[in-house]
This record gives sequence, C-alpha cells and structure tokens, in this order.
Amino acid sequence: MNAAVYHGPGDIRVEEVQRPEIETPSDAIVRVTHTAVCGSDLWFYRGESDRETGTRVGHEPMGVVEAVGDDVRSVRPGDRVFAPFVVSCGYCEFCRKGLHTSCVNGDSWGGDNGGAQGEYVRAPHADGTLVRVPDSDADDEDVLTALLPLTDVMGTGHHAAVSAGVGESDTCVVVGDGAVGLCGVLAARRLGASRIVAVGHHADRLALAEEFGATETVLGGDGTDVVEAVTERTDGGSEHVLECVGAASAMETAVEVCRPGGTVGYVGVPHGIEDGAFPMFEMFGDNVSLRGGVAPVRAYADDLMADVLDGTLDPSPIFTKTVSLDDIADGYRAMDEREAIKVLVEP
Amino acid sequence: MNAAVYHGPGDIRVEEVQRPEIETPSDAIVRVTHTAVCGSDLWFYRGESDRETGTRVGHEPMGVVEAVGDDVRSVRPGDRVFAPFVVSCGYCEFCRKGLHTSCVNGDSWGGDNGGAQGEYVRAPHADGTLVRVPDSDADDEDVLTALLPLTDVMGTGHHAAVSAGVGESDTCVVVGDGAVGLCGVLAARRLGASRIVAVGHHADRLALAEEFGATETVLGGDGTDVVEAVTERTDGGSEHVLECVGAASAMETAVEVCRPGGTVGYVGVPHGIEDGAFPMFEMFGDNVSLRGGVAPVRAYADDLMADVLDGTLDPSPIFTKTVSLDDIADGYRAMDEREAIKVLVEP
Repeated sequence: MNAAVYHGPGDIRVEEVQRPEIETPSDAIVRVTHTAVCGSDLWFYRGESDRETGTRVGHEPMGVVEAVGDDVRSVRPGDRVFAPFVVSCGYCEFCRKGLHTSCVNGDSWGGDNGGAQGEYVRAPHADGTLVRVPDSDADDEDVLTALLPLTDVMGTGHHAAVSAGVGESDTCVVVGDGAVGLCGVLAARRLGASRIVAVGHHADRLALAEEFGATETVLGGDGTDVVEAVTERTDGGSEHVLECVGAASAMETAVEVCRPGGTVGYVGVPHGIEDGAFPMFEMFGDNVSLRGGVAPVRAYADDLMADVLDGTLDPSPIFTKTVSLDDIADGYRAMDEREAIKVLVEP
Repeated sequence: MNAAVYHGPGDIRVEEVQRPEIETPSDAIVRVTHTAVCGSDLWFYRGESDRETGTRVGHEPMGVVEAVGDDVRSVRPGDRVFAPFVVSCGYCEFCRKGLHTSCVNGDSWGGDNGGAQGEYVRAPHADGTLVRVPDSDADDEDVLTALLPLTDVMGTGHHAAVSAGVGESDTCVVVGDGAVGLCGVLAARRLGASRIVAVGHHADRLALAEEFGATETVLGGDGTDVVEAVTERTDGGSEHVLECVGAASAMETAVEVCRPGGTVGYVGVPHGIEDGAFPMFEMFGDNVSLRGGVAPVRAYADDLMADVLDGTLDPSPIFTKTVSLDDIADGYRAMDEREAIKVLVEP
C-alpha cells in the first residue's frame, strides 16, 4: 500500500510500505478514506522540531473498518469510523477521567501503527480509540468532511475554550487564526460566549472567524499593537483567552490580553516557550491561570459529533484545499506557504 | 523616627527618617508594634533581585492606629490593626472580586508610605487596606503573634492551597518548607486535605510541617530523588500541588509530582523561571494547570482571623526568632543563613 513518509524538512514522499495487519485481539485495521495535514505537522516539515527520517506521518484518520481482532466489540468491518490523534484504551484511570491523552496504554500514530496519511492504519485498542459514525450518515460526504476535524483541530479548539472556562454570555479572546483558532471560535460560540474577539495575522482567515461566530477581529502586523487593541476593546482584558498557536509570541499575547484573575486556555504545542520567553511575571502579578495542554479530543468526540450530525456545528470550511494521497507533498507545501488553512487528503 | 533602610546586598541599616503624616483623607497612620522579615526580602538582600539603595523595607505591618484622615470609617485611633503586603482600596472591580493585589488604586509599602520595618507607616486607603483586630483580642500577645502571618505568609500559603484546588479528603503535595510552605500545610489541613506530603530540604522545618498537619515528609538533598519519592508515594503524582518557593527548581518539582490533569497552585515570586527553566512541555503533555500568583491576602484575612481567634489556626511557630528594630540586620542575617524560619520584629 502507499503512505506518506518523512524524509527531512520540506521532503514528504509517498512510498510503497507494508500494509498493517491485526497484531493483537484489540486491534482494528482501518482503510483510510479521509485524512488531513495538521498545523503541527508543519513543525517537523519546517525543521522546527525533530523527527526521525523514514517515519510515517499523519494522525487524523477517518475511514472504513476493514478487519477487527477477536476482542473488538464496538465496531465491525464496514463501519465508518474516525480516530483522535492519539490512541487510547478507554478504560484506564485517565481515559475514565476524560484525559485520554494521558492514557497509560496510549500510543501515537506514525510508528508501527502506520501514519494516518496512508491507505491503511492499524488502530490499537480499537474499542477505546475509534469513534463510529452512525450508519445513517456514514456515506454523506458533507457530514464526513465536517466530522474529520473532530480527529484533532475541532476537539483541540474546544479544549482551549473549555480550559479557558468559556461559558454562557462570556467575552473571550481567541489568539490565532489557524485551523485550531478558527475551531476555537466555533467552540466558544457553541459554549455560549456572547462576545468573541478573534486575533490573527490573515484577513481572509479572520473573515472566516467572523463566519464562525467571532463578533470582532483584530488583525496584527503592520505595526498594529494587538495587545493594546484587544485591551482597549475589552476594557482591560478578557477573563477567558484561548491560546491556539503554541508560539512564544502567541502565549505572550494571550497572557497580556488576559484580565487579572482570568484564565488562558492553551492548546498549541509549545514552541520557543522553553527558551525563556514565558511571561511568568505577568502571570504571577495578575494571577492569570494557565490551563489546557494536549487536547483529549476523544473525550469530546461524541458531543461534538452529535452537534455536527444535527447540523449545528460545521468546521468543514477550514478545509480550503483537497489533495489525493499522491499529491500530499503539494498539500504540505500549500499549508507551509499559508495558501491553504487546512488540507484534506483523500487516499 | 527609626526605620530599616536598604543599602545594597547584605546591608540593612536602621536610620532616622521622616515620620509619615496623613496626606489624603483616606489615609491612616499606624504605629507599628509587630512586623517581620519576609523570605521575599531575601531576594534583594542576597542581590538576586534589584532594589534601589536608600529605600525603606518591610511589608508586613501590624500596629495601633495613631491618626486617621477625615474619610476613614472602619478604624479609629487606638485600634489594633494589621495590613497585607500591599495596599488596596477595597472598592474597585478587583478588590470586589477578592483580587486585591490587582487593585487599580493599589500601592506597595516601602515607598512614600514607609516600609513596615519602621516605627510608623502611612496606610493609604485605610478602609480597604487595614484589618481591625477585635478589641477583645487587641492586646493578647499570643493572638497578635498568631495573626501577624496573615499579613503575608499565611494568606500566601492559603492562596497556594486554594489555587491548587485542595478540598475535603484530598491528597496534596506542598513543595517548600519555608514559612509559606509551612503555612501551606496549615491551609491544606484547614481545607480538609486528608493526606499532605511536605517536601523540603530541612529536617527541622519538616518536623514543624508534621506538627502543622503534614502526614508525610520528603527530605531532599544528599542524592534523594524527590520527584521519584513523591511520585511513588502518591502512586503517580498528586492532583493538588502547592508550589511555595518560586525558584525554577521548585516549579519543576511541582509540575513533575503533579498527576496528569492536576493543578499546581503557585505563590512564590518567580525567580530563574524566566531564564528558560519553565517545564512547559511536561505541563502541556500532562494537562497540568497552573493557578495562583501573588496572593490577595486581604481577601482571606477575615476568614483566617476568625480561625486564629477561635483557636483553630496558629501559624505563630514559624517565628523562631524575635529581634528589636535596632537589631533587624541580625534578623535578616539569621534568615539568610537559615538559622531562623521567620523573624518577628518589634519596633
């Protein structure tokens, strides 16, 4: 079968690899029908984080179950499923608490399981990992495209909003206009926020943020002091700030636009923050809380899917480009050059 | 009058200075009867933080009201009072929310108001800043010594416990065996924690932690792996960790002994953390929340005083040395050399 393989910064190739097989009775094999390129894939693509060359990539699988091990109960061959960006057992302490990213039996895609950017993956702990799409919607392309972001960015944006404590009638600020930030806007609206200030660097993406429910936008760059602009609009800062980037500068902005006593919900994989740019003193002086981390999107999948299926949630506009698996290198390029917000891949 | 003045690292002198006077109608003048040297005073005393030479020091005043401005309603001359380590108005948004450290009319001791390590201070916003001790207890030396820590360390330890989310029957870890850490133990016990693991570097202080309610102690140093020891005892970490030091190493320990999904309540003035030692990746991966900051001890003063007055809370054993104002330099030395946990000063 074919799969995308990382060969160094800027070098993603589609190669013939071994097709995965059932290895333990709790495994399932999924034929991938839809997957995506993630903003976090750009960190290694740009050489900003380490990744071994020759490794398979992709962590947002959706597809059709091809085979299941003897112990699997929740899905059968032929079922449409999707899976979060990490594997989780579903029964350990942390899975039961809704913190599937800390699953003690957890694993990631891309190793022996195969990357989601390939024709097949092996899903360990299939009962805990896979989310089954109801048969009635299993072949509706529009629904599937709207569900695909639940594998990662929609659940991640939701985690930012939940972590920031967004609730009914709140004012919040969303820092970042990438796919996660845009999903953060959707999540904040869904949680009842009445005022959502979206902060970004791209006019077209902020326009989409408005479609998604942002009531105001602040475009950075060209000398605009984003912190000043947001602080002025919110009369001193917002109590709920979603940090949806992970870069040190975004974290700094998030803390600075947070009202004293407020909370920053952060979900972007931290980059550069460990190099001394963490705004510790501002946080300390203002009693700003920091909550969040790698999003346990499995915990949110059922609730978010219910809203997608009843038509009240649709993150699919974040996919502004679709490529075949053979053309996935062009998908990475398009995201790297910010030509596309997020790329859908059809193996 | 006499007051302590900072003249550079290791150099605290008692000098004749101008006695403060009522400047605005909301001021009060307090004759200081009890004050203290704070662990945070050691940062400038050791040259680890900047402070202008020639400035007055001390921020934990307790005393008797000498005079009040025309607008002051809550205290009268002759009343015994104490005040938190910052001045707060009592009526702004943040004071009303219990975040007095973010008071928009706030101020600190040590400038024009005079340092608390002196014979008199001017208390701006007396109605918001000063806490009146009931007349029945106003001259009981034991009570006054037990109340004095409410100016800073007891309220700060309590803020760590509250921020860490400590509640009935919880297990928690207190990192730090200084005055704040010891008060954190008292606070955790007061909030109902059934298991309190105190972590420190001094056997005598950990013995006091046990008197204060710690159910277990872990002594660091000499090759003891504190993180390993605490993680083993708590079967993978505690959901509630109080970081009561402020040093980068303590923050690292706190995050590492925190269970995934748990919360670190931090209150130590951050030192060294901005230089790249912030354990961001561990926090991110484990969804560890960070709450706290500079403690709004004014918000806690009334509740904590009630417990001191009814005899259920007594942090006074943290004062292991008492000096006169004239001998305050010896008090700084004793704390710097860890000869004393906390020094009480009697002007």
